[in-house]
Amino acid sequence: MLDKTTRINYLFDFYQELLTPKQKNYMEMYYLEDYSLGEISDQFEVSRQAVYDNIKRTESMLEEYEEKLFLYEKFQQRKELVRKLKEHDVIQKHSELVEMIQKLENLD
Amino acid sequence: MLDKTTRINYLFDFYQELLTPKQKNYMEMYYLEDYSLGEISDQFEVSRQAVYDNIKRTESMLEEYEEKLFLYEKFQQRKELVRKLKEHDVIQKHSELVEMIQKLENLD
Repeated sequence: MLDKTTRINYLFDFYQELLTPKQKNYMEMYYLEDYSLGEISDQFEVSRQAVYDNIKRTESMLEEYEEKLFLYEKFQQRKELVRKLKEHDVIQKHSELVEMIQKLENLD
Repeated sequence: MLDKTTRINYLFDFYQELLTPKQKNYMEMYYLEDYSLGEISDQFEVSRQAVYDNIKRTESMLEEYEEKLFLYEKFQQRKELVRKLKEHDVIQKHSELVEMIQKLENLD
């Protein structure tokens, strides 16, 4: 089981375009740039509680999107299959096959 | 270029879980079951214009989701790569590889 921060980071990767600019800002600062709730609230001149509530609400939205679209779950399953394909002796002997599988991987 | 109906059908496949139950109903009846706007409006006891507006708005939403998430575009690219892999002589000689690629395909 991944820890929650790692999971939220992945979900953010997949669904960030569905969030509002404010939600994206708070999430980026809190999860990617490691600002504290207090630092974020100072910068945006809102209460610490408002930032906290917004981030918790965004986390729920990300989980709701995943329940509907399964992008992260499918990504993990594809990643595992691609890993096995790439490690296969037969594939490794054919550079054009390795290249095609690499292209598949880059689509995620 | 795909005709518009085919494209909307694909987008509906990918993003229908993000629509409201009413939007899903109208879209299914109009695009999948080939009801006319008049027949849908009779069944739901709303104006023909209301059904039309709802469907047009839903079509725009599907296009907006695709602009943000590219699920259909990536699906097409993966499909093309998987097709080439499956047709490759080397792959066809190894049933376990065919099977793995089949699993990849089924994830879409």
